[in-house]
Amino acid sequence: MFKKFGYSLVVGLSASALLLSACGDVSNNAEHEVSPELEKTIETVSAEEKANDVITPHKDLNQEPVPLKMERDGTDVYIEMTAQITDIEIEEGYEYKAWTFNGEAPGPLVVVNEGDTLHFTLDNQDPAIPHSMDFHAVHTAPDKGFIDVAPNEKGTFSYQASKPGVFMYHCGTDPVLSHIANGMHGVIIVQPNDGYPTDDEVDKEYVVIQNEWYKYNDLEDMTNNVPSQVVFSTKALHEGQPNTNGTVGAIQNAPLEAKVGDKVRIYVNNVGPNEVSSFHVIGTIFDDVYMDGNPANHFEGMQTVMLPASGGAVVEFTVKEAGEYPFVTHQFNHATKGAVGLIVVTE
Amino acid sequence: MFKKFGYSLVVGLSASALLLSACGDVSNNAEHEVSPELEKTIETVSAEEKANDVITPHKDLNQEPVPLKMERDGTDVYIEMTAQITDIEIEEGYEYKAWTFNGEAPGPLVVVNEGDTLHFTLDNQDPAIPHSMDFHAVHTAPDKGFIDVAPNEKGTFSYQASKPGVFMYHCGTDPVLSHIANGMHGVIIVQPNDGYPTDDEVDKEYVVIQNEWYKYNDLEDMTNNVPSQVVFSTKALHEGQPNTNGTVGAIQNAPLEAKVGDKVRIYVNNVGPNEVSSFHVIGTIFDDVYMDGNPANHFEGMQTVMLPASGGAVVEFTVKEAGEYPFVTHQFNHATKGAVGLIVVTE
Amino acid sequence: MFKKFGYSLVVGLSASALLLSACGDVSNNAEHEVSPELEKTIETVSAEEKANDVITPHKDLNQEPVPLKMERDGTDVYIEMTAQITDIEIEEGYEYKAWTFNGEAPGPLVVVNEGDTLHFTLDNQDPAIPHSMDFHAVHTAPDKGFIDVAPNEKGTFSYQASKPGVFMYHCGTDPVLSHIANGMHGVIIVQPNDGYPTDDEVDKEYVVIQNEWYKYNDLEDMTNNVPSQVVFSTKALHEGQPNTNGTVGAIQNAPLEAKVGDKVRIYVNNVGPNEVSSFHVIGTIFDDVYMDGNPANHFEGMQTVMLPASGGAVVEFTVKEAGEYPFVTHQFNHATKGAVGLIVVTE
Repeated sequence: MFKKFGYSLVVGLSASALLLSACGDVSNNAEHEVSPELEKTIETVSAEEKANDVITPHKDLNQEPVPLKMERDGTDVYIEMTAQITDIEIEEGYEYKAWTFNGEAPGPLVVVNEGDTLHFTLDNQDPAIPHSMDFHAVHTAPDKGFIDVAPNEKGTFSYQASKPGVFMYHCGTDPVLSHIANGMHGVIIVQPNDGYPTDDEVDKEYVVIQNEWYKYNDLEDMTNNVPSQVVFSTKALHEGQPNTNGTVGAIQNAPLEAKVGDKVRIYVNNVGPNEVSSFHVIGTIFDDVYMDGNPANHFEGMQTVMLPASGGAVVEFTVKEAGEYPFVTHQFNHATKGAVGLIVVTE
Repeated sequence: MFKKFGYSLVVGLSASALLLSACGDVSNNAEHEVSPELEKTIETVSAEEKANDVITPHKDLNQEPVPLKMERDGTDVYIEMTAQITDIEIEEGYEYKAWTFNGEAPGPLVVVNEGDTLHFTLDNQDPAIPHSMDFHAVHTAPDKGFIDVAPNEKGTFSYQASKPGVFMYHCGTDPVLSHIANGMHGVIIVQPNDGYPTDDEVDKEYVVIQNEWYKYNDLEDMTNNVPSQVVFSTKALHEGQPNTNGTVGAIQNAPLEAKVGDKVRIYVNNVGPNEVSSFHVIGTIFDDVYMDGNPANHFEGMQTVMLPASGGAVVEFTVKEAGEYPFVTHQFNHATKGAVGLIVVTE
Repeated sequence: MFKKFGYSLVVGLSASALLLSACGDVSNNAEHEVSPELEKTIETVSAEEKANDVITPHKDLNQEPVPLKMERDGTDVYIEMTAQITDIEIEEGYEYKAWTFNGEAPGPLVVVNEGDTLHFTLDNQDPAIPHSMDFHAVHTAPDKGFIDVAPNEKGTFSYQASKPGVFMYHCGTDPVLSHIANGMHGVIIVQPNDGYPTDDEVDKEYVVIQNEWYKYNDLEDMTNNVPSQVVFSTKALHEGQPNTNGTVGAIQNAPLEAKVGDKVRIYVNNVGPNEVSSFHVIGTIFDDVYMDGNPANHFEGMQTVMLPASGGAVVEFTVKEAGEYPFVTHQFNHATKGAVGLIVVTE
């Protein structure tokens, strides 16, 4: 097994910080059948419990966040993540009993290099239902590489991250909409081997993730697409600490920071699950945009970037004066529902 | 008139299959006035009939699908399609009395070459209301080339397909939203004369179309944009056979097929009528994308392609392992409503 | 102060028309606090007045439209605009007591050159609430350059328009969604210094703006995103005259005009506030598209252009036959709600 090493990502992604040394054996394979007992558990949710849609075994559960485990041996990267049930404060004073990776929603940021082989272990600590991992960054047969891991089991999968980009990851267990909307989403960045043409100009790097929240575990509300909150998270800022990761309440607490004249790069992904995003930073224009984070997909001088559900981009812009620069999705009903973040620029 | 030749498209679009020989005369011109009698017919729908919004003369109508007629003489292509009322199974056990081209919804796939002149005849076999054809692939004055053809009449129009791409076609008769949402949409591919830069790498070719269904002929529901189903159709797979064309129920019946290591190309179009699409294939990444199917609009390494309503793309990807690769719109409430297809990859 | 010069933009944007001579001093600075008296005014709206959501001091107000003031001195451009309350006919017979710039909604078209420094004065003639200006075309710290101007005050701000494009502008005062949805939006075009590669081919130039309208000043309706109308405005056509600026009722009154064989350029922006747009001209294909209006972002042969909320584009197309060419957002429920315009092509 991995030794715990409390890996935490920091602002201004340092690639070298990811060059971790060799790790131990990772061997358990996935078991993804839901046992008859488990199915019964799910079905026997009482009417009262059903009312607030908490799956019975989740009811009094609030699992302590677990740091992401990640070690590197050459181009082999060993990653272990948990599936777990953890309360997330998605609005001031409103705790959502989220289905999470590692006790965070969005889950922990993962950064690897183009060409790396990922050896990924999902440790499903959810006692009630299976979960799985779908990395948009990899090539694999989904019915082999993205299969369910049963409650209290581990599953290990290997695949290559052969294309650079800002990729979504998410739980792919049925019903997928519930698993994503309940919090099982995040971002994996695959750094291009030859970098971006504008690497030398960039002074600050951040990661911003947009997602929606719905009524608690309410698949009907999710399907009807009436988000209660639309929020941004700035994972890299929070050094892996849960519950302060950039939702509405965290905007004032943890703005992104830059200096006058800086060229700021944001790795952005809209994990949805349902909405598209019109990503915009107020008071500036994107000098350079790489759609889905691929250096080949270069745009210039964009006021706003259209992100499909699960789409990503690298956006770069210059902040010319000291002050506060909010960022939004310019679909302003979503900004009204919370999707506003802040960059503070000082002299 | 055309002689019937039972033209049917097959998987792995063969351009040569489309090089058809000369055809007969096509001379009827459009008559697009709705007669006072017809208007009366529409108005005198009874309250009971109105309740389920079936136009009276459609009530017991279920017209047998008619194969697409298409013949080629040099760069002149003679196409005849019907407008007709045909029951389409859009979900297992749910027949929708669709307004269709040729008894299919989406209508038959049409493939021509860049620079072809289309001589198109619409045979409106609908006894009740006028229909028309708006090919996004052509240049024409809409009030001449896309005008209504009255019930039981034929109209013939000529125009050039001068740009390559994956274009939507649809009925453009007022109210357009009803005509599209009731099933009168499809795809016309215009093959580029110089091909795509990646033509030599492609092993398999498919066509995938996304569309929404609403409550039966309910313009209010359509306008409020609450789709009952969002589905993919894979027209090329079904060799023109109606009622098995890739809606929800057909996913298990007719997955797309490929071999390990294949580069698969999908011509995709989102015919709407209302929603945008975030097209994504699970377990792979698009090596190459040509927006709207034009070879000049080249992207690389995309996880998800943003398609506007009526937008198309050519997407190409490699399947590296045997197994099952679903494709979705990553606006996951739409996937939940049915927009999931499947590619089966074998050794 | 500016001398009034009744500046009005005309069809076929003439850059030289914008080379205006030096102007006077512009010195008032912004005061953006809402006074306690004002806050009280807003709060003391009676229940009856609240019912139709008209802010009390707006109730019987219908301020005469004020022409845009704009003068040029080298690369310094002096612009003065008003914030004012003016009735706008957004549908035949339906006057909306709009919050406007200069008595128009969308506000007056502004055209400057890449690299210009804008010296912008907002004259807030609204007696009740503060307003502000957020130009997407400029670089500035929003908490300095885009701040509120109190009722009956003026505020002046300077910033550079350093990137070419088709940019949105809007009031950025909280709640931003209300200010945009009530009418405070428009377009500023920044002409590229080196032009567009296709400049020599273009025969006609127009500006088209898409926006939604909601129930009167109903933030809940706006947030729930159920637009009552979705409309296009063709600002350049109307020479600054208010109330005929291209909303639904104006389509028949003022179609865009072109000759057979013309290459038409449309500067298009979707100001939202909530919806994305699938911009399409019926009967033609876009030869050339510059996303967000930047010459570097070149696409070819597009049937439909995806515009995020606040996104722009330059689209160019050829009209080959005489007749009527409607343009729409191909999200057809929005076309059904009004988003249809017309180009009339004559021999």
